[in-house]
Amino acid sequence: MNKVLCGVDIGGTKLSTALVDHNGRIIDKSVVYDHVNQPEDIFVEQVSLIIKALLRKNDLDESDILGIGIGCAGHLRFRDGTMITTSNLKGFKNYPLRDSIQSNFKVPVILDNDANAQAFGEFKFGAGKGSNSLIFMTISTGIGAGIILNHKLYRGITGTAGEFGHTIVNPDKDLLCTCGNKGCLMSVACGMALPYLFRQKIKEGKKTIINLPGDFDFSQVDGKFIKKGLDLGDPVCKEIIFDSGFYLGIGLYNIFQVFNPPLIVLGGGLLSWGDIYLEKIKSTFYEYARDMIYDPIEIVVSQIGADAGVIGAASLPLE
Amino acid sequence: MNKVLCGVDIGGTKLSTALVDHNGRIIDKSVVYDHVNQPEDIFVEQVSLIIKALLRKNDLDESDILGIGIGCAGHLRFRDGTMITTSNLKGFKNYPLRDSIQSNFKVPVILDNDANAQAFGEFKFGAGKGSNSLIFMTISTGIGAGIILNHKLYRGITGTAGEFGHTIVNPDKDLLCTCGNKGCLMSVACGMALPYLFRQKIKEGKKTIINLPGDFDFSQVDGKFIKKGLDLGDPVCKEIIFDSGFYLGIGLYNIFQVFNPPLIVLGGGLLSWGDIYLEKIKSTFYEYARDMIYDPIEIVVSQIGADAGVIGAASLPLE
Repeated sequence: MNKVLCGVDIGGTKLSTALVDHNGRIIDKSVVYDHVNQPEDIFVEQVSLIIKALLRKNDLDESDILGIGIGCAGHLRFRDGTMITTSNLKGFKNYPLRDSIQSNFKVPVILDNDANAQAFGEFKFGAGKGSNSLIFMTISTGIGAGIILNHKLYRGITGTAGEFGHTIVNPDKDLLCTCGNKGCLMSVACGMALPYLFRQKIKEGKKTIINLPGDFDFSQVDGKFIKKGLDLGDPVCKEIIFDSGFYLGIGLYNIFQVFNPPLIVLGGGLLSWGDIYLEKIKSTFYEYARDMIYDPIEIVVSQIGADAGVIGAASLPLE
Repeated sequence: MNKVLCGVDIGGTKLSTALVDHNGRIIDKSVVYDHVNQPEDIFVEQVSLIIKALLRKNDLDESDILGIGIGCAGHLRFRDGTMITTSNLKGFKNYPLRDSIQSNFKVPVILDNDANAQAFGEFKFGAGKGSNSLIFMTISTGIGAGIILNHKLYRGITGTAGEFGHTIVNPDKDLLCTCGNKGCLMSVACGMALPYLFRQKIKEGKKTIINLPGDFDFSQVDGKFIKKGLDLGDPVCKEIIFDSGFYLGIGLYNIFQVFNPPLIVLGGGLLSWGDIYLEKIKSTFYEYARDMIYDPIEIVVSQIGADAGVIGAASLPLE
């Protein structure tokens, strides 16, 4: 019998831990919200205890699981399992997160970037099943990505490869990204850019049909706000969706030129903007790529859905 | 004893064929200039005869060579050895170039993009010797590149991966690239952009100290023209070198974010602009990458030099 998979998704608001079967289905899951402000060693203890409790609850022993996969946003050094820096937790600067958790278990513990974990989950269980290679990109507050080449995650020397979100697509743009640069894909085309993009349109004199109070706090403009505007028929929200889709399309085109991949899988919250957004991404991609496509490239939406983070993490020991 | 290597570099003006030893040194070389306007079958015959004559001249038999590597600019499908399209030769649309040449030889014939061949040459014999992985980029009239990951060329599904030159770095730019798009790296930062960039500067009222006749033909502005201007202290030429270096620096930064590689090797004619150019490329790269570099990344100049094309091609059977 195949051993059970165990995944941990360290988010900025919730910590999800799940037992997952070899078809990528969740057997049992634990979600807690009190993990963020803990000192590092307490956090390690918390994660380890949650895993052990989940095993006990399901009448499983540590020897019944193949390994423990952990996904966390941020920069980490894959080869030694060090969390270099993450905005999801307090502290954790150059913290040996993998080895600390490993010290409580005998089965292998694997720590990777959350987007890498999701990419591998899609490859094993989702839209990438059956493909040799794919590029996964998740578009929500930020933009994360994972590169799978010949059945393996490509991570680079540190483990920070695949940061398409920080590639520069227009150095003349104004908004400063959290990376410290202007003009990267994240700063023009994802959730964190929306307050700026909306305010810019209003400043330029574009008319929104959304009733904005005089003291409107633009920082509340997020993906859901824009979606609501779209559903109301607001032209400003629609323009922002088109602008974002345009730059995402350019991002995919750049991926095509660099990787010439058979498959790109898109995930993340902004896809809830729907077909109008996805069509703009795709039409921009095809306008740029045109007759340079000699073998089919598929652009599809991720299939795993809400639990992609923890299922992806659980898939890591299968690599 | 190691078998001899044989390389063919199909350029737009010259056809170079060489026998190369296992240290990447040329044993003997043939260069001809009459290959471009031949019908496909005559060209295949010509290449085959040149290889055979070169072997005979050096008292070698086909069985003394490991294989024949062929490098050619353009788009080709690596897996079946088809030249899809190339601007270096007339015709050759979806032409089975590899198999046509293979039919005249028993040793394996390998056809690849010229930049891939150069990348592999640098990896085997040049600046990449001893490295596991590298990104090679050659900057001359166009921009070519090759990706080496874990000792192997990464080619993508068709064989067109690594086209960093066609990634969009500023969609607001005006110059149309040969690829049909505006704003790709090639259209802002290599030889083919120089006439446009120079004319733009003059249009903007920038003062050149170069004496331009009233009927000055801007199409003659090339890398050598700009270099001469630089040596004279011309501010317009210097600005163009800085602008090009800036975008190349962005190109390298994007490579860093996507591949997190240990090594980037730069080659090509525009490097003759010298330190002022290379320093601008590097300083831009480091301004963008800053504290996101957690493991050393080296940016070095290619070591193989003038014969990089044919030596790279010869290295292909070593993959």
